[in-house]
Amino acid sequence: MTTTGDGAAIHRGVRTRDTAKEPAGRTVTSRVLSVLSAFSGERRRLSLSEISRRAGMPLTTAHRLVSELMAWGALERDRDGRYQIGLRLWEVAALAPRGLGLREAAMPFLEDLYEATRQHVQLAVLDGPDVLYLERISSRDAVGVHSRVGGRFPAHATGVGLVLLAHAPPDAQERYLAGPLATFTDRTIADPGRLRWALADVRRNGYVISDRQVTLDAVSVAAPVRDAADEVVAALSVVVRLGDPRPVALVPPVVAAARGLSRWLLSHPDHP
Amino acid sequence: MTTTGDGAAIHRGVRTRDTAKEPAGRTVTSRVLSVLSAFSGERRRLSLSEISRRAGMPLTTAHRLVSELMAWGALERDRDGRYQIGLRLWEVAALAPRGLGLREAAMPFLEDLYEATRQHVQLAVLDGPDVLYLERISSRDAVGVHSRVGGRFPAHATGVGLVLLAHAPPDAQERYLAGPLATFTDRTIADPGRLRWALADVRRNGYVISDRQVTLDAVSVAAPVRDAADEVVAALSVVVRLGDPRPVALVPPVVAAARGLSRWLLSHPDHP
Repeated sequence: MTTTGDGAAIHRGVRTRDTAKEPAGRTVTSRVLSVLSAFSGERRRLSLSEISRRAGMPLTTAHRLVSELMAWGALERDRDGRYQIGLRLWEVAALAPRGLGLREAAMPFLEDLYEATRQHVQLAVLDGPDVLYLERISSRDAVGVHSRVGGRFPAHATGVGLVLLAHAPPDAQERYLAGPLATFTDRTIADPGRLRWALADVRRNGYVISDRQVTLDAVSVAAPVRDAADEVVAALSVVVRLGDPRPVALVPPVVAAARGLSRWLLSHPDHP
Repeated sequence: MTTTGDGAAIHRGVRTRDTAKEPAGRTVTSRVLSVLSAFSGERRRLSLSEISRRAGMPLTTAHRLVSELMAWGALERDRDGRYQIGLRLWEVAALAPRGLGLREAAMPFLEDLYEATRQHVQLAVLDGPDVLYLERISSRDAVGVHSRVGGRFPAHATGVGLVLLAHAPPDAQERYLAGPLATFTDRTIADPGRLRWALADVRRNGYVISDRQVTLDAVSVAAPVRDAADEVVAALSVVVRLGDPRPVALVPPVVAAARGLSRWLLSHPDHP
């Protein structure tokens, strides 16, 4: 079984060694990556059999790959012997310019914004159809939100998402408008026509107020962050409990923070 | 060349497929990981030839692995065509319980501490002989520090490091005391005997004041964070400019924040 599983893996490795465009799931590299992909926000700790099942590979292959990932520190074991993403992988990933690099530059501006609002301050980027949250600063008594750092959410239902969609390439916008639009509350903009208008408003206004789209007690105000090439690379937002403070009062601080960060990025083109 | 390089890689892969304990650098998996290891805080963007050189593999092998890592999102290319760690890897790594999981739980306590000090507030864990910084909140006018989120520093020279070393397993402490102790200022505790005393003080006092050990204008105050099993898993610190405020005045808020976080972890044993 070992031989079969690994033999196959190696064989594929040989066949495809010069065809990087091969679909995933065939080379050893893609198997390593599928082991990492087995983990999710809902499944942060997995047994070996769960990894083998979720990664779609024989137990023996999973065992070999997991052992190598453990030796390097990409995976660790918890007290119960389950596997979890390791600190060494987090350390390498902390070098991602679009992740912690951007977050590093943004932090002082997020802090300023947090002190002005004391609820949630968020930094997010667009990744495919989702917003990916790079950072969130929250007070202990802030209104409940569904986002977490490293977590995703459908773009159209969030303030940061609307800002990022509004500045995404036209074809990406059209693809998004053509796809299904999830509804979370009766306020969620789930109609393509309304969403198209909302995106135009964002571009015209330079900010957006996302009103009770995810939960009926939360409102977010978001604005775009531009890099040194004047491209919108991220969005900042403040999420507050409905009516306190009035969202419109949050527009100036949010826009100011987003512009401040954009100006900083413009003056530090070589920042990671 | 392609055949040679990859043939060798695959051959090794076959020979060692069942010996996960093999030294790194021999299996395809270890090659994938060595590509990721090629990146560092000083080298966040690399050309293909730099990757092949730093990872110690033929250009063709590097090209194949890099292409597969790109397809998955573990690597991205910047505008100049150089490679960088990708957002997808950051997203997976965000699931590391000892990384963002701990940081998530700590954030409200770090915020409280930040508001009491307005300089730097840090959260770190011990990884081998180094402290690894999981989080840092800094004001724009804070005293200069050498740490960055995802960065390392020798444990003995920092407040968080002294706290973590003091509670590390005895054998780990002895290994550390036996090794070379880097000196950064004339205040750095670089003598094993003095360090041993300092660690005993930390255990007795429950906090430490690290006085100008890294730079002559910065002082840090640190305290231990314990998990649900009462093990010290992290350390919190505040770094301030020498003399403002007096370090001793920072001990109560730092200890309170560290105890608050420990209590939270105790009451949330299942938190990632």
